[in-house]
Amino acid sequence: MAQEHHVVVVGGGFAGLACIRGLRGAKVKITLIDQRNHHLFQPLLYQVATTILPTSEIAWPLRRLFKERPEVTTLMATVSGVDCHSKEIVFADGSRMSFDTLVLATGARHSYFGRDEWEAHAPGLKTLEDATTIRRRILSAFERAEWCDDPNEREACLTFAVIGAGPTGVELAGIIAELARRVLPPEFRRIDTAKARVLLIEAGPRVLPAFPEKLARYAERALVKLGVEVITDRPVTACDGGGVVVGDERIAAKTTIWAAGVMASKAAQWLGAEADRAGRVIVAPDLTAPGHPDIFVIGDTAAVTDAADKPVPGIAPAAKQQGAYVARVIRQRLAGEPSDAPFRYRHAGNLATVGRSAAVVDFGRLQLTGALAWWFWGLAHIYFLIGTRSRLAVAYSWLWSYLTGQKSARLITQGSAASSQK
Amino acid sequence: MAQEHHVVVVGGGFAGLACIRGLRGAKVKITLIDQRNHHLFQPLLYQVATTILPTSEIAWPLRRLFKERPEVTTLMATVSGVDCHSKEIVFADGSRMSFDTLVLATGARHSYFGRDEWEAHAPGLKTLEDATTIRRRILSAFERAEWCDDPNEREACLTFAVIGAGPTGVELAGIIAELARRVLPPEFRRIDTAKARVLLIEAGPRVLPAFPEKLARYAERALVKLGVEVITDRPVTACDGGGVVVGDERIAAKTTIWAAGVMASKAAQWLGAEADRAGRVIVAPDLTAPGHPDIFVIGDTAAVTDAADKPVPGIAPAAKQQGAYVARVIRQRLAGEPSDAPFRYRHAGNLATVGRSAAVVDFGRLQLTGALAWWFWGLAHIYFLIGTRSRLAVAYSWLWSYLTGQKSARLITQGSAASSQK
Repeated sequence: MAQEHHVVVVGGGFAGLACIRGLRGAKVKITLIDQRNHHLFQPLLYQVATTILPTSEIAWPLRRLFKERPEVTTLMATVSGVDCHSKEIVFADGSRMSFDTLVLATGARHSYFGRDEWEAHAPGLKTLEDATTIRRRILSAFERAEWCDDPNEREACLTFAVIGAGPTGVELAGIIAELARRVLPPEFRRIDTAKARVLLIEAGPRVLPAFPEKLARYAERALVKLGVEVITDRPVTACDGGGVVVGDERIAAKTTIWAAGVMASKAAQWLGAEADRAGRVIVAPDLTAPGHPDIFVIGDTAAVTDAADKPVPGIAPAAKQQGAYVARVIRQRLAGEPSDAPFRYRHAGNLATVGRSAAVVDFGRLQLTGALAWWFWGLAHIYFLIGTRSRLAVAYSWLWSYLTGQKSARLITQGSAASSQK
Repeated sequence: MAQEHHVVVVGGGFAGLACIRGLRGAKVKITLIDQRNHHLFQPLLYQVATTILPTSEIAWPLRRLFKERPEVTTLMATVSGVDCHSKEIVFADGSRMSFDTLVLATGARHSYFGRDEWEAHAPGLKTLEDATTIRRRILSAFERAEWCDDPNEREACLTFAVIGAGPTGVELAGIIAELARRVLPPEFRRIDTAKARVLLIEAGPRVLPAFPEKLARYAERALVKLGVEVITDRPVTACDGGGVVVGDERIAAKTTIWAAGVMASKAAQWLGAEADRAGRVIVAPDLTAPGHPDIFVIGDTAAVTDAADKPVPGIAPAAKQQGAYVARVIRQRLAGEPSDAPFRYRHAGNLATVGRSAAVVDFGRLQLTGALAWWFWGLAHIYFLIGTRSRLAVAYSWLWSYLTGQKSARLITQGSAASSQK
């Protein structure tokens, strides 16, 4: 018996998991490598950052997902390179693992457009730690405002700047405004949290640039109604511990959140492949790295274009379609069938929510706004959550939050005050 | 109108909260100060450390608890001292706040009996961060064992040492053994997690020293049945990154957890008061600090004795009784009534669980073991959880875990591998 074909998948996000799911029953041995032990449902990460969901409801141990697949081995390890010549991946500790087919689905991080020193002051939102960091900063700012007596410091504590008005920025700003206006007021005695300023700052001409203008205008009105100050056409030119500079106006803000740009992982560097401005590998029509027919690059770390030569967006459905496509190509190759159909992206739609009861849904011809869109958004996300337990738990958290107005995950953890007292 | 009597409560644990609850409707202004923003249900903390419950189900924002009590102001701040002469507390930043009555309920931390350098290698379990640290170490050890090839390192990764066999140590060891034997085996490919060694190391002659011998023997048998190696009468003499030394035997263990001793907070130092060996303030019969009739010290930071001159245990019911007692004394004083009845502790009982379906319950005359005790334990804890949401959520997590054997909170967060890859 010939040795089994070894597929190595690096990255347990939507793209990597879809590829492994698509290989169910294929005559392959699969190794899934991730530096974390969990898959993260990134579309709901902003809800962890804003106290609606606890971390455990949007993340699942990778190895549990493939418990019933004995051919899948999951390893928590950090990959530091690829040796394309010997067909091996290289780990951070220098050890190596050979592959027959490699699937790089290593995702993206946020990008500060060359101003990496901003990261310390304006954290982005990509990992569970990012989310708990942002949650801690938001909640601590209110705590600090209640504690301090200096009116200037108090005002800075009660000013929240969200940079970037894509879906994540819109969702963050909406929920922070709701938290300040509807949830927190009865719990504070010295400050009126309803007076908090929530700024949504966008360099481009409008919020939700990827959406049709009509929906973007609706979202902006919904944000303003929640008390968000929407600032468009003005880039952030500086960012430090004291606040942000927008155009030439300095705004004192204790809490700044970055939702403006992403940069792909280092897959392009590992392969010595050509990359676009966001660092994404420019892949062939079959999603392989040019010149490396056994190495696929998918998800947020690949620059893929659709039939109309438009870039495929960095959203979960696109990543899943790419993973499923690669699984099909691998199967065809193993069966000796021709596999020359290029990847074709089918755009299902765009969704974004604004606070507790507004949302925008863009299906091309069908466009929804308001409460109906919000319910659609909620049901769609619950449907896509992996694992029955999380589905029920998230539905329960949302229902509880919706009916009572309470938030379930208002904990300040990690970097809180030194713990010498108790 | 005279200025309202100002009660300052430092510490939002069971004792502090019971005191504030007892003062409902009294003519006082209350300030609650804690360095964290949440009350923690410590009796279930070990379940967070062992992946059964997520953090958000056993902790609640303090200020939400007193949302309906406008006379209660909650401040997140660190207290660094007490000026008994001017009747002020001193904060870490040097600012001060005056009080008419002070209630110190600042709790305890774990103690390493003067070997503080052990803490880095053998974390204790008192805060949410402690629990997620221990959870990360336990899960990472299994991950590392699956990853590495060196048989010695693998064995050390699969060895878990729990030091101290009180209720917390017994509960931790039981659940780690269950995790290794029942939950994880189908998810690993290169190692057999069921072969993991779980050691419960106790310097004294038996497990659960505070329980009757019959129950302790039952608990030990239940632990052995789960695969825990119980080592008694042998103190740990050294502890480092590579493992522990028990008596004169060195045991290689990647994960060591400290459940052996506690040390009170610095309340005694703040007051210049006499303390016992564990640093607890030796209080007067009315729980005031000797010489300071307006300063009460309660909960784990006070050394209290019962009518038979036996020390009152450091458990939640004792802390609650003390808080309620102090509230009564404050009310009596405000009403000008005599308040000379000393604090009397009523011992309700001791509970401890061993894994998923065994427990021991000691009510003095009534003693329970086995499944009946386990159900009693579960219902009692659900009953005492604050807030309907948490009650339902914890009941749901437990039921899910009980029926499916799955654990809901298996995330490695905070200190996981550097996040440069994705």
